[in-house]
Amino acid sequence: MASSIGRIFRVTTWGESHGPTVGVVVDGCPPKMPLDPAEIQAELDRRRPGQSKIVTQRKEADEVEILSGVVDGLTVGTPIGMMVRNQDARSRDYDEIRDKYRPSHADFAYDQKFGIRAWSGGGRASARETIGRVAAGALAKKALRLLFGVEIVAYVETVQDLKASIDPLTVTLDQVESNIVRCPDPEAAAKMLDRIEQIRKDGNSVGGVIGCVARGVPAGWGEPIFDKLEADLGKAILSLPACKGFEVGSGFAGTLLTGLEHNDEYFADEERHVSTLTNLSGGIQGGISNGMPILMRAAFKPVATILHEQRTVTTDHENTTLKGRGRHDPCVLPRAVPMVEAMAAIILLDHALRQTPNSLTFS
Amino acid sequence: MASSIGRIFRVTTWGESHGPTVGVVVDGCPPKMPLDPAEIQAELDRRRPGQSKIVTQRKEADEVEILSGVVDGLTVGTPIGMMVRNQDARSRDYDEIRDKYRPSHADFAYDQKFGIRAWSGGGRASARETIGRVAAGALAKKALRLLFGVEIVAYVETVQDLKASIDPLTVTLDQVESNIVRCPDPEAAAKMLDRIEQIRKDGNSVGGVIGCVARGVPAGWGEPIFDKLEADLGKAILSLPACKGFEVGSGFAGTLLTGLEHNDEYFADEERHVSTLTNLSGGIQGGISNGMPILMRAAFKPVATILHEQRTVTTDHENTTLKGRGRHDPCVLPRAVPMVEAMAAIILLDHALRQTPNSLTFS
Amino acid sequence: MASSIGRIFRVTTWGESHGPTVGVVVDGCPPKMPLDPAEIQAELDRRRPGQSKIVTQRKEADEVEILSGVVDGLTVGTPIGMMVRNQDARSRDYDEIRDKYRPSHADFAYDQKFGIRAWSGGGRASARETIGRVAAGALAKKALRLLFGVEIVAYVETVQDLKASIDPLTVTLDQVESNIVRCPDPEAAAKMLDRIEQIRKDGNSVGGVIGCVARGVPAGWGEPIFDKLEADLGKAILSLPACKGFEVGSGFAGTLLTGLEHNDEYFADEERHVSTLTNLSGGIQGGISNGMPILMRAAFKPVATILHEQRTVTTDHENTTLKGRGRHDPCVLPRAVPMVEAMAAIILLDHALRQTPNSLTFS
Amino acid sequence: MASSIGRIFRVTTWGESHGPTVGVVVDGCPPKMPLDPAEIQAELDRRRPGQSKIVTQRKEADEVEILSGVVDGLTVGTPIGMMVRNQDARSRDYDEIRDKYRPSHADFAYDQKFGIRAWSGGGRASARETIGRVAAGALAKKALRLLFGVEIVAYVETVQDLKASIDPLTVTLDQVESNIVRCPDPEAAAKMLDRIEQIRKDGNSVGGVIGCVARGVPAGWGEPIFDKLEADLGKAILSLPACKGFEVGSGFAGTLLTGLEHNDEYFADEERHVSTLTNLSGGIQGGISNGMPILMRAAFKPVATILHEQRTVTTDHENTTLKGRGRHDPCVLPRAVPMVEAMAAIILLDHALRQTPNSLTFS
Repeated sequence: MASSIGRIFRVTTWGESHGPTVGVVVDGCPPKMPLDPAEIQAELDRRRPGQSKIVTQRKEADEVEILSGVVDGLTVGTPIGMMVRNQDARSRDYDEIRDKYRPSHADFAYDQKFGIRAWSGGGRASARETIGRVAAGALAKKALRLLFGVEIVAYVETVQDLKASIDPLTVTLDQVESNIVRCPDPEAAAKMLDRIEQIRKDGNSVGGVIGCVARGVPAGWGEPIFDKLEADLGKAILSLPACKGFEVGSGFAGTLLTGLEHNDEYFADEERHVSTLTNLSGGIQGGISNGMPILMRAAFKPVATILHEQRTVTTDHENTTLKGRGRHDPCVLPRAVPMVEAMAAIILLDHALRQTPNSLTFS
Repeated sequence: MASSIGRIFRVTTWGESHGPTVGVVVDGCPPKMPLDPAEIQAELDRRRPGQSKIVTQRKEADEVEILSGVVDGLTVGTPIGMMVRNQDARSRDYDEIRDKYRPSHADFAYDQKFGIRAWSGGGRASARETIGRVAAGALAKKALRLLFGVEIVAYVETVQDLKASIDPLTVTLDQVESNIVRCPDPEAAAKMLDRIEQIRKDGNSVGGVIGCVARGVPAGWGEPIFDKLEADLGKAILSLPACKGFEVGSGFAGTLLTGLEHNDEYFADEERHVSTLTNLSGGIQGGISNGMPILMRAAFKPVATILHEQRTVTTDHENTTLKGRGRHDPCVLPRAVPMVEAMAAIILLDHALRQTPNSLTFS
Repeated sequence: MASSIGRIFRVTTWGESHGPTVGVVVDGCPPKMPLDPAEIQAELDRRRPGQSKIVTQRKEADEVEILSGVVDGLTVGTPIGMMVRNQDARSRDYDEIRDKYRPSHADFAYDQKFGIRAWSGGGRASARETIGRVAAGALAKKALRLLFGVEIVAYVETVQDLKASIDPLTVTLDQVESNIVRCPDPEAAAKMLDRIEQIRKDGNSVGGVIGCVARGVPAGWGEPIFDKLEADLGKAILSLPACKGFEVGSGFAGTLLTGLEHNDEYFADEERHVSTLTNLSGGIQGGISNGMPILMRAAFKPVATILHEQRTVTTDHENTTLKGRGRHDPCVLPRAVPMVEAMAAIILLDHALRQTPNSLTFS
Repeated sequence: MASSIGRIFRVTTWGESHGPTVGVVVDGCPPKMPLDPAEIQAELDRRRPGQSKIVTQRKEADEVEILSGVVDGLTVGTPIGMMVRNQDARSRDYDEIRDKYRPSHADFAYDQKFGIRAWSGGGRASARETIGRVAAGALAKKALRLLFGVEIVAYVETVQDLKASIDPLTVTLDQVESNIVRCPDPEAAAKMLDRIEQIRKDGNSVGGVIGCVARGVPAGWGEPIFDKLEADLGKAILSLPACKGFEVGSGFAGTLLTGLEHNDEYFADEERHVSTLTNLSGGIQGGISNGMPILMRAAFKPVATILHEQRTVTTDHENTTLKGRGRHDPCVLPRAVPMVEAMAAIILLDHALRQTPNSLTFS
């Protein structure tokens, strides 16, 4: 019951890494939206393995098939099914992990939960599951853009200690896509690239931080109390593989400030449009958007698959060792960028649709 | 529709700061649990205003009334209603904010969302709403302790740049409650107390970080994909007033490490019980608990109410200024400690109950 | 987790028959709706015990207290808590049923489910729980009327074999309220009254059928597939105590017709407004309203409490007998009329609000 | 957001009649259940078009593909995707209905709701959508049988005025499948067959009533208040195409009885096992199963597609006429039998899994 997210724009994914398919059902997509499969494909290509030398070399075309919900190039308000067939499932590479738990992977926890697991390729815990998220996110991003003028851009902000300089108010998709690291600061990107290549050669891995901005979100999205916008965004992004932290606006750094420094003062322009002078709130106050850009950051740990021998246990709970081999992502961040955008888009569109009933007025 | 959280253990709160009552309905609490109202009251007293000199001096007894669901001292499986009447609602103090939006408060966003707001005392965005959460959390903590032996302890880890030294594996509630800051490191607590008192005199405010540990959680709680344990914990804690960031395990600091440093190697003891040598995962892998302590941290911004004049706008969107006055919390952290515990407990119990169907076995 | 209904207009009830209170939280009520507690009270008075000689004589003022969500006579978009205190809980009358299961009551089933029950007065299975439903329904009816011009009228259509002649297109609330049976056909009502009084004297009980019409529902409410309008209406009304059957439009009688007889042909008037020549569909096609009046019928069994000795078992599962005594409803139907209206209103408003996102258009 | 049902055993369908595929995602199926695709196929074959001379002759193999969630013949606790490709989509037959609304079909209502529709073949409102339900129901039936020994049998009870004589306590699947009407009373089945063939020749259609029994359901399934077992069963079955009524136990007929006649007295056998002497409650009291067989009946209207000219309107809301042509089901009941079983099974398994947390005990 955990494979769905969103209340009105509702996304349900299925599929294991080495099973026949991975896919998604998107229920609640607004009707009459133009939809070209190529748009979905373009997003999937951003998360595809083998797209560059610094990501896993698993060979997958990840070609999307639209299963339902689109007629004559338009959505019709009914569920949109989308699916990709798995192809390059080298189960031989995985034989050893049938009987041994990979450190910091989900294998042990799945066995403890279900008493069984799709051991090959990480099963459902594989990043291949995110294909469905990214496909759904492509729909959400398009609806947000067409209906509300909202634009979402994510980017690599740090790799380990290497920090980029990025202005979230102006950063563009083109800048992000200008290099294979997906860091819009070219100088930092070059250093990150070197670092990742070195790490790959070492059979090791590194993590970092992804930043994300949503521009053009009107005031009034999000809900009081439990479904605060930052809470739902946080949940969605923390649900991505390898994500260990989330912050909105000033985040952890904001705890160093005083209230006098931290408060965002309001001002009105001549058209009585209200903005804030600063945006430490990150565009959300009391769980509800205030019309300023929404600013988020997410921490991604170094991926667990490394080509070094490590201590672990067998499925019979006996001590042993295991050495990763074969293909792996030395750094998940370049491929995580479209995933973060997708999750942010799914949540924002869902809250946009949840806000519509408040447009009704009593007369 | 945003006032509920949890899927099986389901918590719904109601109430505004200056309305007649604040309360909660808890549906799905396991039946036959002994419940004494004094246990609820003890938790409410930990979040009560006026409990010490470093929190707001609003006078509220916050005496809980149990409305339903408990018969002869036992829960009966039906919804447990709990309620507190508001008493010291000094609406006069708030007259000015009827027509002016307080910076970094939710006033403006609520008006944008609903076209109306309970302006007095912050309405539903007030921290008084958390009374219902803490009452529900008291139920959850008790059920977790009695059914599963789980213990949850939160504590103040930093105030601004002042950092305590705390061992989450051994920290106790008594240590946390030994001082009014709720920092179990006495030396750091003393410095924090000085800082908070100084800030209070300045009419300013400060934030900080709360740590939280859940010990005794068995492996197997949490779900794959969207309802990962860290995602649901993150959402719950990010939904608390003033929370701007959440991390689990190594969090943002973990992004500085390599995979070789970050991976938690498994080992089995003589009884074939599996643990990890380190716990950078924070007790969760693939969204599912692995039997190690669950480690979380949450960032709380400096509270927005300060006694300084600031720029803002009127409800007619004209520029003006506003100076806070009256009672305020110079630092929300001491009172947020029981709130964090409550939210963690609500999520953990919910996932514990969600895991029960997996105990069914095919024969 | 079963005490809530509705997705956007979300109703959660609490309370046992002989507990301190019964109440409800309504989340998602549209903001800025004028709300006078007297309006809620008027609906509660229609379901109140002791309102006439043919209903139970339990003495309850059922005075509603509004706990939250209303400021200066207007809803503010946040949860509206409403509560009634129980007063006349004659637990002595119920002593015998602590140890014996009443036939066709829920006592045995609750014990099997929870291993414990609030035995006194039927606990949560008592019709007193419907106070919260009726209060929530009062909000829903008002919102439906003000926002959409929808009017909902329920009425007693049969008592046992006594059948009234009622035109659902024109029946009014005044007609329904013109007699204590709540049957708008005066002649039938008189016969029903005689029957119920005779049955009451016999210490027995009778059931019957309640009809309900919703007029003014625009085309387009309801959802394809599982949340079809008739499915959600059916669930809501079948969830009322003593309800054993539900039908929409032609219902069971429609199975006797051929398609040629049953189909509702469309026609357009001069303003191109589309109607159907007949309405055997009951205003719903494919789960979605078609603009015609929505017609429903619900079967209510004779209430289980009767003043006759019957075979039963003890809580130790030993055979015994039990004779009901004290107050009881000889016929639940007059009091069930406002309950049916409430449930229909809750579902219709929820679907009205769910339909609003479809008003967004791509440009 | 209406394409999902169930809370723990969660079923989400997709697909239009003439789109590429129809399918289903089942989340929350218990892990380690043996699953052979042939078992799914066998159920799909019971609802398949062209299976006999009295159903529509659309040519569809309806061959199921399992997309995920099954490894080495066992479920693994993750979502199970299942899909069928549409083949015989004769859109030419449907050209006329692009511009005209078919009476008593969903075409008009969909257009009113979404402003667009998949007009060909009825789109999402087609009975082809139930392929996903039946596939999911096959899983649910198997889990219910293996885990709890529950057996569900549905059957045709009436066609128009032709009524079969069936004992729900003993009726078997073999008896149901012994004729193409799926009526286990051979004499009645023969008459029904004649009626249906005559009606088919007339280009007309007929409806009837399907009965359904669930045997072996233990006491304690179902929830108080809104998710009563009969309410959830009613919703699920009312959500089937053409279903206009639902009753449990005595249903509408029970309204003719007095309480003395209607009450189900309890008795205990020598092993202190409690049963009821009669079962007018239909196995459910207070929304919770009491251990007796669960008895349901559902009314299905005559299908709307008939080969007669009828009045209707164009999509421009101008009066016109329309005459159905091509393939149609003269009587939906034989194919609806597996659909009713599927919906009952989905709800019962969901409630079985919801009941598991109540097995936890406080010590």
